[in-house]
Parts: sequence; C-alpha cells; structure tokens
Amino acid sequence: MKKLINNPELVVEEMLEGIVKAHPNYVRQVSGFNVLVRANSPVKGKVALISGGGSGHEPSHGGFVGKGMLDGAIAGAVFTSPTPDQIFEALKAVNGGAGVLMVVKNYTGDVMNFEMAAEMAAMEGLDIEVESVVVNDDVAVENSTWTTGRRGIAGTVFVHKLAGAAAEKGMDLSEVKRVAEKTIANVRSMGMSLTPCTVPAAGKPSFTLEENEMEVGLGIHGEPGTHKDSIKTADEITTHLLDKILADLDYSDSEVAVLVNGLGGTPSMELYIINKKVNEILSQRGIKIYKTLVGNYMTSLEMAGASITLLKLDDELKDLLDAEADTPAFTQV
Amino acid sequence: MKKLINNPELVVEEMLEGIVKAHPNYVRQVSGFNVLVRANSPVKGKVALISGGGSGHEPSHGGFVGKGMLDGAIAGAVFTSPTPDQIFEALKAVNGGAGVLMVVKNYTGDVMNFEMAAEMAAMEGLDIEVESVVVNDDVAVENSTWTTGRRGIAGTVFVHKLAGAAAEKGMDLSEVKRVAEKTIANVRSMGMSLTPCTVPAAGKPSFTLEENEMEVGLGIHGEPGTHKDSIKTADEITTHLLDKILADLDYSDSEVAVLVNGLGGTPSMELYIINKKVNEILSQRGIKIYKTLVGNYMTSLEMAGASITLLKLDDELKDLLDAEADTPAFTQV
Repeated sequence: MKKLINNPELVVEEMLEGIVKAHPNYVRQVSGFNVLVRANSPVKGKVALISGGGSGHEPSHGGFVGKGMLDGAIAGAVFTSPTPDQIFEALKAVNGGAGVLMVVKNYTGDVMNFEMAAEMAAMEGLDIEVESVVVNDDVAVENSTWTTGRRGIAGTVFVHKLAGAAAEKGMDLSEVKRVAEKTIANVRSMGMSLTPCTVPAAGKPSFTLEENEMEVGLGIHGEPGTHKDSIKTADEITTHLLDKILADLDYSDSEVAVLVNGLGGTPSMELYIINKKVNEILSQRGIKIYKTLVGNYMTSLEMAGASITLLKLDDELKDLLDAEADTPAFTQV
Repeated sequence: MKKLINNPELVVEEMLEGIVKAHPNYVRQVSGFNVLVRANSPVKGKVALISGGGSGHEPSHGGFVGKGMLDGAIAGAVFTSPTPDQIFEALKAVNGGAGVLMVVKNYTGDVMNFEMAAEMAAMEGLDIEVESVVVNDDVAVENSTWTTGRRGIAGTVFVHKLAGAAAEKGMDLSEVKRVAEKTIANVRSMGMSLTPCTVPAAGKPSFTLEENEMEVGLGIHGEPGTHKDSIKTADEITTHLLDKILADLDYSDSEVAVLVNGLGGTPSMELYIINKKVNEILSQRGIKIYKTLVGNYMTSLEMAGASITLLKLDDELKDLLDAEADTPAFTQV
C-alpha cells in the first residue's frame, strides 16, 4: 500500500487536524468529534446546512464548509457512514435558530444515521428544526452494494452550492429544502474508473482491474457498476456516460451546469479532454452550457477515473449557482 | 497505459480546448498556438505576466491565468519546453503597453526558449519591454537531467501570485520584477514520489519504483532526486523534506506561507496529513504560519507524491499574498 500516511487507523483524525491547521479562518473542529463547522458557527438566524458521509471523498464534504455552502461536515471512517452521535454534535454546533437541513447521499448507512441523529435531537428536547434531503444522482444502477435506490455521487456538490446559496440569502428552512429538492430533481451523474483504490485500514484494493480494463458506472466506494470493459478512448467513454445521463432526464432546449469530476488520481489534463467532448455532444444536442466545473470535487481516494454531472437549470438555480461562495475547496466571486 | 485520452499526440491541444470551453470568462486561446491568455487580454497599461513550460503540470500554468496572477501561459508538449514562436505569440497577445515579465522555471530548454522569444520580439522591432525571472526553488539537487542549477517547482506558484498581485496594483515592470525576484529569493521547496508517471506519447513510465520504494527529491518530470528509499511514514517524510528546506534558508523568527502540493495522483487526505506534521515542526521551530495552501498546484501528470514549499514573508509579500485573485484554479477574496 503506497500511501503518505502514519497510522491507517488514524487517517481521518490526522486529516481533520491538517485541514483545521490549513484553514483556521474557514473551519474549526467540534472538540472530540470528527466534525468540521464554520469558524464562526453558529450563524445566528441563518438556516444551517450539514452534510457528510464516509471519508475518502475529499474535498467532499469538509472542503465545502464556508460561506455560501455548508455550515458543517461530518467525517465518518473511510467509506463508512458517520455515527449518529457525531451527526448529533454537528446539529448542535451549527444551529443558529433557523433550523438545519441535512444533505445526505443515498447510502443505507448514511440515511439511517442522519435520521437517527435528528431523532436524538428531538428526544433530547433540543429546539432544533431538522429537515433532510437525500441525493441520488447516479444513473448507473438502481440498487448497489450499500444502497437501496440510486447512489448519491458528485451531483451532491451542486446541492451544497445551491441550497447553501439559498440559506445565505436568508431563505427559511422550507425554502432551502425546496431548493435542495429541486436541485436533486434536476441533477444526474455517472462515473467510471481505470483503477481501484485502497482503504488504508484494509491495506489492499477493494476490487481489481486488468491492465486494459475499466469499470463503468461504479460507485464512489468502488461498488460494482454496470460492467467492466476494455479501455476506450476519452471520447467514447464520455459519449457513453452522457448517453446514459441524457436518456434519464429530458435536457432538450435547456441550459445546464456541467461538472467533470476527478476521482482523485486523474490528472487535470484528462478531465479537460473529457470536457472538450462534453461540449461537443451537448452542442450537437442543442443543450446550452451555462457554467462548467472541472476538478476533484467528489473523490474516491486515489482512484483514477471521472464522473460527469449535468444539472438542468432555470433562472432561480442559475442565480443560486452564481452566488458568491468562499470555502477551502471552492471560492467564487 | 491507463489514461482518459484519445490520441497521445494531441493531448495538449485537446486539453487546451477543454480548458477554454470550461472557462471562457477567464481565458481564450491565441488562434493557432498553444497559448492561453486572459479573455480580456491585453490589459491596457498593466504589466503583463506570462509563464509556461511543458504540459503535464496542470493547473500550472494555464489554470492561473486571470486577475491577480498570470496574463498568459504557454503550453509545451508534455514535459517539453514550449517553442520560442509560441512564447513570442504570448508576448504579443498580452502586451498592454507596460511591458511583460516572463516567469520561467529553471530548466535549460525553458530558459533558452523564453530568452529567444524575447530576442524575437526585439528583432522584429516590436515595442514590448520584456524582462524575465528564473525560479529555482527546489533544494533537492544542484543540477539535474534538464537543469543547470536548481530546478523550479511548486514555489513558482507563489511567484505567479505575488508578482501577479504587484502588476494588478499598478506597479511598473521594474517593480514587478523586483517582487518576483524577492519571492524567488525567499521560497524553497522539495518533493518526493511514491509512483512514476507516464508521458502519453511515451506510453510507459519514465522510471520505476518497487512496491515499497519511494524517490526522494525528484523533479516534476521524474528526474532523479537525492535517493530512493523504502517508504516511510508521512511524519518521517515530512520531517526529512522540511529539514532540507529549513537548512537551506534561515526561517527563524519569520512568518511563512506554506504550500503542500500534490503531484497529481495523491489524495487530498494525504496532503492534509502532511500539513498536520508541517504545522507541528514549524511550531516547534518558532516559525509562524501566515497562510497555507494544500492541493494540486504543480503536478506531474498522475504521479503520487507531494512537495512542500515554504515562502518567507515580510509585510510587502503578505500584502501581495492576500490580494484578491480570480483564475480558473485559484480564487481568493
């Protein structure tokens, strides 16, 4: 296992300390818990957003804690849902009196543990209004190793951005939730991988690929996708992923935001080569690109691969997409 | 070779097209040349900054074209210096009448070709005042495969940021050059790698490492470093790199900017684990960290590894470091 780590059992704790040391103006850690919140949390009177899940997807989610996106992020063990008590601490730390929206990726453990945390808050008589949304943007497979229904992958970042902007504008909890659900309804993704990745505590890859083989439609924890195939060109792969996405939602005559997301081990060069083809295909289909993001937003440790996300926009979503954001991993003026 | 590409001979051209399609508000391509300039180039009356070198180091340098950093970036073939005629086109495209500073990493081919481009501009009688600086921040080795003297690596990003801020503030060419040289005098870096990388046109790694082996002090093209060694912990590696850096320049009682740079295939998690140790060591030495950057700034395709950069600051450099920047790969408010 070739990793720049110390103790495989402490990678999350050491990473969080490194994040806080790097970005003290943005985030602080809730003492004793693997939870990052804004340095100035709670923000009084603002709806707070929290998200989280297993670690290994950085910069998701801690890198998006800051103005215009999240208020808090809970970091589970690598590829493992955070525990309810950690999420409960996040709820308490970010609550500014206007309620908390939990943005949950659709994995069975995450959905269960976030709900349990909300129940803990209610049972303890804390006066925190809690709502949640579940992101399920991955069009590849209906059910998967850890999922009933579709998985939540890189499209989640658009939910953070748009619902975060809604909260920053002063919308109330029901409105922020409406924006999150509208974003979820309009976002679709699909990914592929050239290599597996290794969870530090496991010490070996969770699956294998031959030298000329790729996995299409896999999940961000290396869950099986639709099929293995011999490696195709970037253009062929992009065409396949976009075909699946475009078949799932009617994007005709619409404007979209594009996210070409790297899974952690993919050079920026390759992501931009994919983006070139995304542009060609969408142009041919009469779909107008309003904004494009290219980079590592929702990763799977050192996995080499990429996902493509399309978000169908209307005027409200465009406005929220364009709003300022300032976080460790995403700043927009 | 596991890469998301189409034609190995066209990766740079296709990448540049993908960058322009993603970021049309930031950059445009100089027609017929592998040169990206600001969308609004030339900026009248402002000193312009250009940089460049071989491709494969993205987001360096095209990702840093924008307000507060570069005006133009020239993309050579992968790990190959751009040709003088490409650089010449960049000079013409960015010149706003106040002169151009060329920020060159210290590789023999780069230094020669940038100088030839400046001579071409003079010979053609173009009224462009051109100055250049050469970045040589890598403390690992004195000479290397493609270098006389020290190599320029990730510290170059600080030169882009600080000299770019100086130009944006309206300083004249001699002052912007002074800031760049001051930054170079105060910046030191060193890197290491767990894996090699593969130049697309070559199709195989340029060197090999055993399963438990790392290369210490290597260059960003995989040039040999100081030695191969068995893989150590992140703490031990960080300590070694910082020892070399701190032995090279007196940082005592000073404030520094830190860059923990990923080489392309390294998860964010590992970079932050390194940053934790950087903080511990600098704190023990009484060196105060003013600002920290963590991420992929100067990469070597998909290489797994990292470099550490320290920039010694004074009030002027702090002010320039804090100035706003807005580019595809680095935005700061």
